[in-house]
Amino acid sequence: MADAVEAALGLCPWLTVERVGDNVVARTVLGRDRRVLLAGHLDTVPPAEGNDEPRVVDDTLFGVGAVDMKGGLAVFLHLAGVLDSPPVDLTWCFYAAEEVSREHNGLLHLWEERPDLLAADVAVLGEPTGGVVEAGCQGTMRLRVTLTGLRAHTARPHTGRNAIHRLAGVLGAIDGYEVRRPVLDGCEYAEQLQVVSVEGGVAGNVVPDRATVVINHRFAPDRTPAQAESTVRELLAPHLEPGDHWELLEAAPAAPPSLDDPVLAALVAATGAPPRAKVGWTDVAFFAERGVPAANFGPGDPLLAHTPGEHVRADELVQVATVLDAVVRGSARGSGRADR
Amino acid sequence: MADAVEAALGLCPWLTVERVGDNVVARTVLGRDRRVLLAGHLDTVPPAEGNDEPRVVDDTLFGVGAVDMKGGLAVFLHLAGVLDSPPVDLTWCFYAAEEVSREHNGLLHLWEERPDLLAADVAVLGEPTGGVVEAGCQGTMRLRVTLTGLRAHTARPHTGRNAIHRLAGVLGAIDGYEVRRPVLDGCEYAEQLQVVSVEGGVAGNVVPDRATVVINHRFAPDRTPAQAESTVRELLAPHLEPGDHWELLEAAPAAPPSLDDPVLAALVAATGAPPRAKVGWTDVAFFAERGVPAANFGPGDPLLAHTPGEHVRADELVQVATVLDAVVRGSARGSGRADR
Repeated sequence: MADAVEAALGLCPWLTVERVGDNVVARTVLGRDRRVLLAGHLDTVPPAEGNDEPRVVDDTLFGVGAVDMKGGLAVFLHLAGVLDSPPVDLTWCFYAAEEVSREHNGLLHLWEERPDLLAADVAVLGEPTGGVVEAGCQGTMRLRVTLTGLRAHTARPHTGRNAIHRLAGVLGAIDGYEVRRPVLDGCEYAEQLQVVSVEGGVAGNVVPDRATVVINHRFAPDRTPAQAESTVRELLAPHLEPGDHWELLEAAPAAPPSLDDPVLAALVAATGAPPRAKVGWTDVAFFAERGVPAANFGPGDPLLAHTPGEHVRADELVQVATVLDAVVRGSARGSGRADR
Repeated sequence: MADAVEAALGLCPWLTVERVGDNVVARTVLGRDRRVLLAGHLDTVPPAEGNDEPRVVDDTLFGVGAVDMKGGLAVFLHLAGVLDSPPVDLTWCFYAAEEVSREHNGLLHLWEERPDLLAADVAVLGEPTGGVVEAGCQGTMRLRVTLTGLRAHTARPHTGRNAIHRLAGVLGAIDGYEVRRPVLDGCEYAEQLQVVSVEGGVAGNVVPDRATVVINHRFAPDRTPAQAESTVRELLAPHLEPGDHWELLEAAPAAPPSLDDPVLAALVAATGAPPRAKVGWTDVAFFAERGVPAANFGPGDPLLAHTPGEHVRADELVQVATVLDAVVRGSARGSGRADR
């Protein structure tokens, strides 16, 4: 994939193309006042149910990665090839390994090796959003909670305490969690709390002294990871006791919608549709953490991502390409911060 | 262990000693009207916290297996060596691998290879019972219940259904289970219901579509395994749905107290203490299944079994040996069934 993209971009004399591992970054170096970065990942999830054979039916492409996110990449490659003298400098970033664990993410590798290639005033991630702006992203954290008990023979359970039975309270509290829906920059986020794994047990005749749940919490951009963790801790406090363990396994901060940025505001206006909150976590947070306002905007139905029936339609590509082309060509007119 | 026991029993010319694998069976063949079988397992659980080094402190032996069930074996070896002309025929059965999975149990191997060696009118298992008769035993079963759901992204859980969250109801019902305590032959049993393991989860960002619990149910001798299973199924029915899975992993029937057997009745009388129900499962069920009334009777505190601090005292051995000696010597007087 990286080779193919590198070769295609190499056909454009107005681009400086650099390769770092399996990441390809192509830039205009026109000395403009502002630089817009457009980024998309080259990898896909593994194929499922035979969707590794792409097929085109009428104007629709089916196949693994069709919507997540070959559609966005196709639009970027097209625009990279036609925007030969844009009023802002452009960086086209095609990166590796977004679909695997965080540590392998190509943006992190680029940041380590060549942070200069990622310098920009604003960033657009081409993840599928149905052609509307999905603003910012929610943060995500995984917490591991271990309940303790006392081992005993199952014929005499009163001499011990069943840690798995204690899960009833924790699971009930999480299942009854009331979704918080803050509205930021006109976008309604929706926080979530889900147990993603459970584990416990010693032997078939032993009252277990340990039971563990891993919880995934999605939190809105108006909360820091620490605030979000506190909220979960308060919810579960009535069901926890001294001796239980609480562990933060991973936390990725949220990204604010940043819709007062002039380019992002212009992007919203050009779509002609109200922006939506991004409830999942995306690499817009990577840019937000580094002070670069960013949003998600790409072709195709995001709910199709990672499904066997992934597909993207030609008209979806055209709409996103048209909007981005107009925003880039009009971005010299952006004057200061939009007021939203 | 089997070699040492075989060698010791070989010193008694009134015994016919036979070896089948690691099982040793010694019998008197005196042509008496009745035959009493006394059985104990040779193996122990693995050592823990350094208890593999036996030590004697005053009149107490500490060490792995001291109470479960070297104490009982010591009493049996002693009695085998002194009861050279008992009024009933005696079978001393020292068997292998009671502490591992059922399939390896030496009694089963003996039953396959030499069922004649296990023929008896009544059996006594020398498991630790604190020197009182523990009558019959409760049955035990393991059930696996799998709750289903629908996978979804954890940022959009409403598009799926969390199978782990559904466990809250099942665990709550089991934790709230009210112990049934039937009284049989004067012994109060206590049924139990405990989750012994729990498992579920797909990935850190996926609403899980599957969660499994394994339940251990201990049931009294007035219920068949099928009746016991029905009880659990009724308890959990409100929390189960079409698509969930119910699986009986293992069921071992209970053994009735059988205290109307003359030898067992005499045993209870000789202890001078009321009998207790055996709430755990023991090999008395092996004999009960084959039509041989059986009870548990041995030296030492059963609650010490499988603990690092296992020990047995000399006076406990003496008491059990005295009782058994008296019962065997007096058993010719047993006339028909005792009326309890």
